[in-house]
Amino acid sequence: MKSLPLQLLDNDALSFRLERIFRLMKSEGMNSMLVSDNINKFYLTGRIFDGYIYLSRPDASIRYFVRRPTELTGQDVYIIRKVEDIPGIFERGGIALTLPMGLETTQSSWASVTRTAGAFGLEEFGNADAVLMQARAVKAPDEIRLIRACGEKHDRVYRRIPHLFQDGMTDIELQVEIERLTRLEGGIGIMRVNGDDMEINMGSVLTGRNADTPSPYDFALGGAGTSPALPVGADGSVIKPGCTVMVDTNGDFNGYMTDMTRTFTLGSIPAEAVRAHEVSIDICRRLEKEGRAGVACATLYDMAMQMAADAGLANRFMGHTRQAGFIGHGVGITINELPVLSPRSKSILEENNIIAIEPKFVFEHTGAVGIENTYRVTATGLECLTVTDESLVSLGI
Amino acid sequence: MKSLPLQLLDNDALSFRLERIFRLMKSEGMNSMLVSDNINKFYLTGRIFDGYIYLSRPDASIRYFVRRPTELTGQDVYIIRKVEDIPGIFERGGIALTLPMGLETTQSSWASVTRTAGAFGLEEFGNADAVLMQARAVKAPDEIRLIRACGEKHDRVYRRIPHLFQDGMTDIELQVEIERLTRLEGGIGIMRVNGDDMEINMGSVLTGRNADTPSPYDFALGGAGTSPALPVGADGSVIKPGCTVMVDTNGDFNGYMTDMTRTFTLGSIPAEAVRAHEVSIDICRRLEKEGRAGVACATLYDMAMQMAADAGLANRFMGHTRQAGFIGHGVGITINELPVLSPRSKSILEENNIIAIEPKFVFEHTGAVGIENTYRVTATGLECLTVTDESLVSLGI
Repeated sequence: MKSLPLQLLDNDALSFRLERIFRLMKSEGMNSMLVSDNINKFYLTGRIFDGYIYLSRPDASIRYFVRRPTELTGQDVYIIRKVEDIPGIFERGGIALTLPMGLETTQSSWASVTRTAGAFGLEEFGNADAVLMQARAVKAPDEIRLIRACGEKHDRVYRRIPHLFQDGMTDIELQVEIERLTRLEGGIGIMRVNGDDMEINMGSVLTGRNADTPSPYDFALGGAGTSPALPVGADGSVIKPGCTVMVDTNGDFNGYMTDMTRTFTLGSIPAEAVRAHEVSIDICRRLEKEGRAGVACATLYDMAMQMAADAGLANRFMGHTRQAGFIGHGVGITINELPVLSPRSKSILEENNIIAIEPKFVFEHTGAVGIENTYRVTATGLECLTVTDESLVSLGI
Repeated sequence: MKSLPLQLLDNDALSFRLERIFRLMKSEGMNSMLVSDNINKFYLTGRIFDGYIYLSRPDASIRYFVRRPTELTGQDVYIIRKVEDIPGIFERGGIALTLPMGLETTQSSWASVTRTAGAFGLEEFGNADAVLMQARAVKAPDEIRLIRACGEKHDRVYRRIPHLFQDGMTDIELQVEIERLTRLEGGIGIMRVNGDDMEINMGSVLTGRNADTPSPYDFALGGAGTSPALPVGADGSVIKPGCTVMVDTNGDFNGYMTDMTRTFTLGSIPAEAVRAHEVSIDICRRLEKEGRAGVACATLYDMAMQMAADAGLANRFMGHTRQAGFIGHGVGITINELPVLSPRSKSILEENNIIAIEPKFVFEHTGAVGIENTYRVTATGLECLTVTDESLVSLGI
């Protein structure tokens, strides 16, 4: 059996993360945390394994407890069979259990958290998810490199969308060809989403009336889906002249992702829809200037809402039959991270937040228009990482 | 706004499920349960919505609390904003809260279960997941129809696999073409898996040495994946002469699924691998006769292990570097339901269990061989629902 290094991050990458986490733990009064969620383990190691990571203050230590693969090796890597093995390893190794401990109470199941708390004899525990979500909101340089690389691959796929279209195609047929290109470019084939009941396949392609169909999920727009088993996105509608096709599909090529939406047209669409698309681009231009470290997310939300209202499009903004309560969101390992650009958000933009902004308008017969870009927050504005042409692109060639 | 019927199951389909659930609740001493997990809501309504389902004994009632889409209507459908609204609706409607209540403690997050328990003032609660998993293990006639339909679509995809192969292809390139066909046949594009940390894209294609690479996930076989962000399945290896290609990809076409594996070859492979493939088929033939209602799952496991040992292949059965601890599992809305065919299983097969049996052998240079079928358990044997040719099929045409 060959052995594999567990830790795939280099020292700088790991230090950046740990520094943020320990600072946030300190301000929350949390002295240790046990991490078991795949997303958080990937954040802390660059890989997914079955097991746990223990972080402890004030010595700023990190230890890894691996169920499998058992080939993983490295400093402070311990092979275990079950979570109950960890306290014994602590005792034998003279490792202090520093309390209060945090557990992933919003990501892990009740049974799993309760079992872990029992193994450590904890009567109470903090919310490690809140700390980790906050930590993950400001990206490390290595994460930004990965997200940038996603933006480039995402662009390579999106630029070819007009060439994928054929007369008479349905929305789902177009989506399948986009998925194929995405996978051939290295897309990992799943979309990781935060939230108990959130799920989606590789993205959403909406045309015509389906763009106005509400879904049970908390995405910006809905769509009926092709099955009540997954009611979101394309519903099998033929793409018809006079309709738009909004493409908002997966940009996860390395565990990180960009979020990008572009809108295509078949034949001519109503002038009001064309104008609304321009308003969406205008909103992005404005927010790219106004959005920078130190600006409140709620301010950006209000600015976008005001521009939509000034254009007489308030009732079509972020949906028509139902309107989403946000115009943007953090992006990283999952498609919906912090901060959220919503009216009641208390978040202030920080440098190296990665956020998607998606001002979209829905016309109940035509479909949806607008764009979505993923940005890096800088001290002076927003740097766009999704560079595909933003104009309405005709599918009829 | 048009209104939509929330309940998509017909009366027979719903009655079948409720009868099983209420019987199991009674034997567990559980008098009500609040269901919030998407998979269980889909089981109980045929659709996914954001909200809760309340089941209560002894009046065998079912009530629906919907956050969205708010268009959903029907008998005993209540629109809510949050879980805390439910107790007030009970009080105003004179609906009795029957205790003890069960919550989904293994599927729902600690935060969500704790919040729900708080809303209802519960000091203790049962494990609704255990009841629902047990209920879902025996499929209703409508579920069997859906699974049968998946088997037919799955076959339509698998029969075309040899035609998808081109010289010089990598495992992931072949997988992408299989995914495309699956999606064009109506595949919903996600693989629902039970378990806190289980995840996979649309399936697994393994060739050569990668078939022997352990993964952190609890699937029968592993594979490195194309990224440490999702370490399972195809790793980008070129499919080489002398190797096998094991295809175990998604058969979810309507919210239910079949699980099927077939093995392909390029050029000639070692005689021992050919023989092992035949042993896999022999194991399936034997278990199809011996497996029937009333037989212990552990007995089937032992039988398969014994046949592998008798063939001198014990050290290659269910993996080589690491061996899986089961040879089959229930299939339904998720890819891993009850019962599990493992040595310590206490489960006895029941009529209309749907189970996958996957006797696989791994050769560290050649790849994996063997088959997997999905079966319906009957009183007299196992009925195969995955009918694609089981022999080793050559990709060189």
